[in-house]
Amino acid sequence: MSLNSFGHLFRFTTWGESHGPAIGAVVDGCPAGIALSEADLQPWLDARKPGTSKFTTQRKEADEVRILSGVFEGRTTGTPIQLLIENTDQRSKDYGEIAQSFRPGHADITYHQKYGLRDYRGGGRSSARETASRVAAGGVARAVLRDLVPGLKITGYMVQMGARGIDRSRFDWAQIGQNPFWCPDPVAAEDWAAYLDALRLSHNSVGAVIEVVAEGVPAGLGAPLYGKLDSDLAAAMMSINAVKAVEIGDGMAAAALTGVENADEIRMGNDGPVFLSNHAGGILGGISSGQPVVCRFAVKPTSSILTPRRTINQAGEEVELITKGRHDPCVGIRAVPVGEAMMALVLADHLLLDRGQTGGVRGRIG
Amino acid sequence: MSLNSFGHLFRFTTWGESHGPAIGAVVDGCPAGIALSEADLQPWLDARKPGTSKFTTQRKEADEVRILSGVFEGRTTGTPIQLLIENTDQRSKDYGEIAQSFRPGHADITYHQKYGLRDYRGGGRSSARETASRVAAGGVARAVLRDLVPGLKITGYMVQMGARGIDRSRFDWAQIGQNPFWCPDPVAAEDWAAYLDALRLSHNSVGAVIEVVAEGVPAGLGAPLYGKLDSDLAAAMMSINAVKAVEIGDGMAAAALTGVENADEIRMGNDGPVFLSNHAGGILGGISSGQPVVCRFAVKPTSSILTPRRTINQAGEEVELITKGRHDPCVGIRAVPVGEAMMALVLADHLLLDRGQTGGVRGRIG
Amino acid sequence: MSLNSFGHLFRFTTWGESHGPAIGAVVDGCPAGIALSEADLQPWLDARKPGTSKFTTQRKEADEVRILSGVFEGRTTGTPIQLLIENTDQRSKDYGEIAQSFRPGHADITYHQKYGLRDYRGGGRSSARETASRVAAGGVARAVLRDLVPGLKITGYMVQMGARGIDRSRFDWAQIGQNPFWCPDPVAAEDWAAYLDALRLSHNSVGAVIEVVAEGVPAGLGAPLYGKLDSDLAAAMMSINAVKAVEIGDGMAAAALTGVENADEIRMGNDGPVFLSNHAGGILGGISSGQPVVCRFAVKPTSSILTPRRTINQAGEEVELITKGRHDPCVGIRAVPVGEAMMALVLADHLLLDRGQTGGVRGRIG
Amino acid sequence: MSLNSFGHLFRFTTWGESHGPAIGAVVDGCPAGIALSEADLQPWLDARKPGTSKFTTQRKEADEVRILSGVFEGRTTGTPIQLLIENTDQRSKDYGEIAQSFRPGHADITYHQKYGLRDYRGGGRSSARETASRVAAGGVARAVLRDLVPGLKITGYMVQMGARGIDRSRFDWAQIGQNPFWCPDPVAAEDWAAYLDALRLSHNSVGAVIEVVAEGVPAGLGAPLYGKLDSDLAAAMMSINAVKAVEIGDGMAAAALTGVENADEIRMGNDGPVFLSNHAGGILGGISSGQPVVCRFAVKPTSSILTPRRTINQAGEEVELITKGRHDPCVGIRAVPVGEAMMALVLADHLLLDRGQTGGVRGRIG
Repeated sequence: MSLNSFGHLFRFTTWGESHGPAIGAVVDGCPAGIALSEADLQPWLDARKPGTSKFTTQRKEADEVRILSGVFEGRTTGTPIQLLIENTDQRSKDYGEIAQSFRPGHADITYHQKYGLRDYRGGGRSSARETASRVAAGGVARAVLRDLVPGLKITGYMVQMGARGIDRSRFDWAQIGQNPFWCPDPVAAEDWAAYLDALRLSHNSVGAVIEVVAEGVPAGLGAPLYGKLDSDLAAAMMSINAVKAVEIGDGMAAAALTGVENADEIRMGNDGPVFLSNHAGGILGGISSGQPVVCRFAVKPTSSILTPRRTINQAGEEVELITKGRHDPCVGIRAVPVGEAMMALVLADHLLLDRGQTGGVRGRIG
Repeated sequence: MSLNSFGHLFRFTTWGESHGPAIGAVVDGCPAGIALSEADLQPWLDARKPGTSKFTTQRKEADEVRILSGVFEGRTTGTPIQLLIENTDQRSKDYGEIAQSFRPGHADITYHQKYGLRDYRGGGRSSARETASRVAAGGVARAVLRDLVPGLKITGYMVQMGARGIDRSRFDWAQIGQNPFWCPDPVAAEDWAAYLDALRLSHNSVGAVIEVVAEGVPAGLGAPLYGKLDSDLAAAMMSINAVKAVEIGDGMAAAALTGVENADEIRMGNDGPVFLSNHAGGILGGISSGQPVVCRFAVKPTSSILTPRRTINQAGEEVELITKGRHDPCVGIRAVPVGEAMMALVLADHLLLDRGQTGGVRGRIG
Repeated sequence: MSLNSFGHLFRFTTWGESHGPAIGAVVDGCPAGIALSEADLQPWLDARKPGTSKFTTQRKEADEVRILSGVFEGRTTGTPIQLLIENTDQRSKDYGEIAQSFRPGHADITYHQKYGLRDYRGGGRSSARETASRVAAGGVARAVLRDLVPGLKITGYMVQMGARGIDRSRFDWAQIGQNPFWCPDPVAAEDWAAYLDALRLSHNSVGAVIEVVAEGVPAGLGAPLYGKLDSDLAAAMMSINAVKAVEIGDGMAAAALTGVENADEIRMGNDGPVFLSNHAGGILGGISSGQPVVCRFAVKPTSSILTPRRTINQAGEEVELITKGRHDPCVGIRAVPVGEAMMALVLADHLLLDRGQTGGVRGRIG
Repeated sequence: MSLNSFGHLFRFTTWGESHGPAIGAVVDGCPAGIALSEADLQPWLDARKPGTSKFTTQRKEADEVRILSGVFEGRTTGTPIQLLIENTDQRSKDYGEIAQSFRPGHADITYHQKYGLRDYRGGGRSSARETASRVAAGGVARAVLRDLVPGLKITGYMVQMGARGIDRSRFDWAQIGQNPFWCPDPVAAEDWAAYLDALRLSHNSVGAVIEVVAEGVPAGLGAPLYGKLDSDLAAAMMSINAVKAVEIGDGMAAAALTGVENADEIRMGNDGPVFLSNHAGGILGGISSGQPVVCRFAVKPTSSILTPRRTINQAGEEVELITKGRHDPCVGIRAVPVGEAMMALVLADHLLLDRGQTGGVRGRIG
């Protein structure tokens, strides 16, 4: 059962609402002896933190994470690691109007239908604020990966805002940290800045596509058929707020390929198999092949906008709703570190799972 | 842990290889008292069965399912239901060549890397043959849904073959069963027939996009945040062989929308909320809204083709490989009943999960 | 996977070490709309709290529980409930000696062997302090049971201290809260007081047997064969620190019975079946029968004693160890509220599980 | 969720009813490359098989196990292993009378209450016949253990029949296979033969206590606090039909010990720690210590007896019931190989779990 937990052996559970006293995550199954402190986690949280540019919500949260358990004298002990983040900037009064009305395109109505009541303050549990807990848990996963697979590297970036995609010929890894959009194409980044500014001022919002790549993933991770690496990645990314699609490798575009085109041909290199292309996104039959694992996901536009939309309230009355408050005009921006965290969490889990079943031994080639 | 199991309360485990004596699934957690016999399951297996047209593999399998347990005097007893399908048409000699070489784009190499050995006969466990077990299990899920949510209806169809999509303006539900492609657009179906015939004769294969719609799904199914209905659907569809992407509602296209466009506005109908559009695909915050649940997935082209492709063998030698045997030129065709089965399995599971946590009671509106 | 989690649908995860900043539990899968506040949980924690008599450890802990999430305006929301208890009275200096040496009969050595390091302060994760988290989670389970099965009542008591059992002919429910041992036999209680006092002064400790009875459990809870109610109770009780045996109904004594003696004969009462005895302890075939559920468990003596015992240290040197610090001479006393909590947690979980699979409908008799 | 599954990483699911066409188990998560054939499994099934002496049911079952999947060219492939055992000697007519009436002390009534219907033929799913599936799965676990921990040895035996225990001073390992009771005390074995014969002829049955010892278990297995080795053993043994109590090490008797007595003192041997006693039964804090793991469980007497007992039927009428058919006068005898199988299954699972989390590395002493 996994209502609020994710993972098999390396497993985390998140808890907390947008406007409660705190949010957090407990990470279970972590190997012992891994160096870990708050300083290892904070940078990832800072990357996700709201209020760092005019393109994200103006809510100010310190997002300081505290480790309450599972670490002793700077090392993990193999016991559960509780990560706690206090909520410090809650303006519950902002949410008076949506206490009774359901934002179109938002979870307001379904939470009400399912549970009969909901913590409407800031979206409660359905708030993007929950993703801070994932990012904290992801920091623990990164510490595990750093220890067990030193060369592994995870990088997320935005490849599309609204209908505006990057130009892959201008792809530059070094650009990713140089603009507020984690955009590898500097021209697109400038274009997006102007575009998003205009949207924001017109009381609108927009969607985005994020790509997360993991390099240095060893071959052999994944457990067919219902614990496939790609199946778990799909579940992981789709569990992020506002995500509506997940792609591995060529994704939807794979449908348009022929078998001749899609075959990632293989040659023999000095250190084993070398693939001549990566349509598969590093996963074959649910198991990693040693190529970079490539995952993309689409984030829908923020549903909380200042433009009036038709909806109903709890009394069943038809109303027009303007959502005030401090909302992200493109929530996809802050989804970049979240996608990275989910990738780290899935890989750490599958690393332990694989070690459990196979002992980490690999079949020989050559 | 769920290497070969899927689901939470309504849970199935599949087993078996393409060329072993049999394959099957055990379904656990099924409610008692549901009318069930082989006759309820066989039609779904027949729909997926190979060899029904020249557009699918010519392997002849009766795909007769037997219920070995969990049913007494025509009704489920609440105990595990074992479904067994014998393999009758195995031509292991066809697979001599791939015993040592790895098909590009296939799980051959990753199974070898992970496990050190593999049942190479017909792809073993990674064969699309495994999907027969899912379809059988899905038949049990459908029987449960028929009993508990009488109006619920699941329909799958192909919306794209290669780069050729259907024309939505010609969409006709009645056409779906009238052509070998489960295609709702009769013009596209004719076009695909010619296209696939040519591809097949040129020793090639092609991908496809499948859409599965569930109508009559009650509001309130899904359990945020890691047991979201869409998260489980994503895992379910991505676990199907050759699937590379999963979309809910507008899917990847949601990224291109603005918040104003994406808002599914709500009015009040006689029986509760009425949504004016369905960009969300029937799921908000991971919980069903009562609208049709819409899911799409992309299937890559079959990697077993008669065109030679460069690869290596287990000895690490570089070779060119032609894959003989009886393969589907567009494995996406037979993925349609599989996608329907996975939708049924996810919905049956979430129906029981929701009943467990909430008792099935719904919050009032109006 | 459930390293630090327990339960299926109603599921909790505990975290925290004896001498860290805090301990706690997150409860997932709780139904929505249940009235819940700290005031509902605190009495159970107070019952378990150390330092309430000279027969328990003199460590002073307020054991004040805070609800950090999952409750809104006094009612559960269906989202995870984080319960946090701060550690306030830690005297880490007390534990200097056992930082390097392994207490005989204690988890010191096995934690070191498994994890390579351990939080030795107060036993870290293996401390009985962890049971406070269970008691807090158990309080949530009790709130659920109070709502869903109003007549259900759980009572724990001690039936044996050392070799000294109660006299069942003197069993008096009203006595249970009247002495420091939760003892239903007032004569035994007095005897135990003198006995334990002497033991404590002689630097020794002693074991105990606890019995927990749940009355008003509806028939039909439990899910054969690996989710049996008794199987889950056995796991639950055995997971409590220092427990070495679990019995259901007649338990070990059932081995000595003949089939004629053991048969709990059945007659028909006004409200359904009436059993003439309860050797089975209210569970048949893993499913509750409607009779009281009776569970017993044995708690071994505290291994931290002031009498010197031979052991080794981490360097592999042979030493004699006296364990200072503030320890329970009979840790079984404080296990009574813990056993009650585990019973409540198992029953709440099986109530939801059963509702999920069967809808809570019962087969008719008569 | 684990209604009919057990285990975390090494996990099995059983299915099938006493009088259906077949029963079986699917084993998931097995390491690849383990030598395995039917010949490895059959001896364990033969040991459990009914009809081998006058002291067990006279039902004749070949209990021939077939491996339907997961093994290729004599080695496991890492995919699910389906084990199938056909039912060949079903005399459903024997069960006419209990189709409507509930045997006292049997699951008849609770299955009916929970599910509303039941497969009454031979007890259906609640029959001891299900244990054949466990023994088959246990055979796979033994093959894994043989490969990964060559010195590990599991031995089960009966230590008590009715009120008649063995004399531990006469304990002789070599005797265990020499009598129909797996009894290590030849004098007790003779006594039991006469005793059970008399009981059987007087239309009665009797309970028993089984002890299972695992020698050569490496230190470090088990995962506190809810995946403790002893907690999983308790669940495993309690899930066996008719078991009413589980003990680890001294078990219930631990309650009567003082801390001074109970301390298993430690000295340093050539190969690491040496314990001077084993009150703990090889498990401290839920983790194996390297000592023999000792587990005991009590089996209640068979409830199907020829002596009339008072009960009710489905119509709610009070009746007297004599249970005809072929039943074990002491079902505990055949529980010995079942207990061994469950021990093997738990240990194999924890071996993989430990390897997953810790990599199998052990903390140093000395």
